[in-house]
Amino acid sequence: MFSRKTVCYVTGASRGLGESIALNFAGRFPEGSLFVLLARNGSDLEAVKNRLLQKAPTARALVRVFDQGTLDQRAFESVFSETLESAGAKAADFEQAILVNNAGSIKPIVFVRNLPAVEELSKYLNVNVAGVISLTSQFLRTFQSSMSRAVINISSLGAVQPFKSWAMYCSGKAARDMFFSVLAGEEEDVRVLNYAPGPLQTDMSNLLVESEDEGVRTWAKQAKAENQLLSCDTSVNKLIQILEKDSFKSGAHIDFYDEI
Amino acid sequence: MFSRKTVCYVTGASRGLGESIALNFAGRFPEGSLFVLLARNGSDLEAVKNRLLQKAPTARALVRVFDQGTLDQRAFESVFSETLESAGAKAADFEQAILVNNAGSIKPIVFVRNLPAVEELSKYLNVNVAGVISLTSQFLRTFQSSMSRAVINISSLGAVQPFKSWAMYCSGKAARDMFFSVLAGEEEDVRVLNYAPGPLQTDMSNLLVESEDEGVRTWAKQAKAENQLLSCDTSVNKLIQILEKDSFKSGAHIDFYDEI
Repeated sequence: MFSRKTVCYVTGASRGLGESIALNFAGRFPEGSLFVLLARNGSDLEAVKNRLLQKAPTARALVRVFDQGTLDQRAFESVFSETLESAGAKAADFEQAILVNNAGSIKPIVFVRNLPAVEELSKYLNVNVAGVISLTSQFLRTFQSSMSRAVINISSLGAVQPFKSWAMYCSGKAARDMFFSVLAGEEEDVRVLNYAPGPLQTDMSNLLVESEDEGVRTWAKQAKAENQLLSCDTSVNKLIQILEKDSFKSGAHIDFYDEI
Repeated sequence: MFSRKTVCYVTGASRGLGESIALNFAGRFPEGSLFVLLARNGSDLEAVKNRLLQKAPTARALVRVFDQGTLDQRAFESVFSETLESAGAKAADFEQAILVNNAGSIKPIVFVRNLPAVEELSKYLNVNVAGVISLTSQFLRTFQSSMSRAVINISSLGAVQPFKSWAMYCSGKAARDMFFSVLAGEEEDVRVLNYAPGPLQTDMSNLLVESEDEGVRTWAKQAKAENQLLSCDTSVNKLIQILEKDSFKSGAHIDFYDEI
């Protein structure tokens, strides 16, 4: 997978796992490969781009402010067409296209009985489900079966196991996993992976100490105090191993702790 | 479960499985039990209400036009408070409250690469996920732990198994199953069931002949031609057996074809 000249899109690339994916992927692809880093925060994205180009001087990189929760279809269409054009490239210039659906949010972390108003629930689903689906659908329309294609979904243990106070997070992750399983069945030539990265040292994990559930709060504090959280780089290295080995069943859910 | 004086809310009650649930549940509960039938189509609801009262003359029934896809929080709040008030009742008048989350939609039935614009995907998730979650959250706030409570989610085989051309349907059903699993963990005194009713003789199944996937189309035509689809009453009888036996693990996914 890493030997092909690639255009690679990473969402939520301004920090945490998305940043680590961008930085660790970049040097592995051949010269002329193009990285497009997407997130809501433009200045953080620029910093990640600079680090990427230091690490992989022969790569090309573009950053775009992108809100995955938007309902403006043009945003999803232009994210691919406009970035290719800006790079002076066409889809056909690449041997492979990769989309890493990393962006996501975790709040509200409250019990079902205390969930906020429906409009906020809808916005949560826009960011974490509808936006991911729309981006992936547009990716398939932009990059067609004449080239290698791979779609990676950053999943979670929460996609397959319920956690108290995480109703929105677990439901959204379950929806994403299922969506990518359907995709894998439909598009046999697209490599599709649901990767659960394990408990990470990220801003998102830090939020868990705010959970309404005491068990989750205690776990989050203890995991941090006892240094049980994984660095993003550790988790991304496992992801790279999975992709290099390339023996996973398309559409499968693979956890950091799974043997491959 | 059926021996208690109950207030029972059924969504999507104007036809198909929802209608069958309302009609088959009604006669089983003691005198004074209250049925609230919700759906988008008011005139169909009135007809179902009349059939219900013929079948169960000692029951009380109310119908309300309710669009589960709304983002107006007041609609979710008033659906419980206003109907209780209209019936001249308080939550405490009942020994048990039941919410049957039956309403749902199936379209678009197209491949991921052909999915419609993000706004339509968002609307799908509003109806099938956000609305269900919001209604359930409000149900818990209205009916508290002093009384017996049960929440039934009409699930699907598609919640646990991917089908081509059903990306939205399967993702939405997977999200719902996971949501109700989280709920079951949080509220130990609420009985929570994800019931997959099997392939039904409903308008929804009829739509499957419009699927973009040939395999799904062929299956749908053949199942209909060979009379393999279940009547709603047959499936609801199984649901009633599951509830009467009351041995299911709260939050479990149980299929029509499972042995209980």
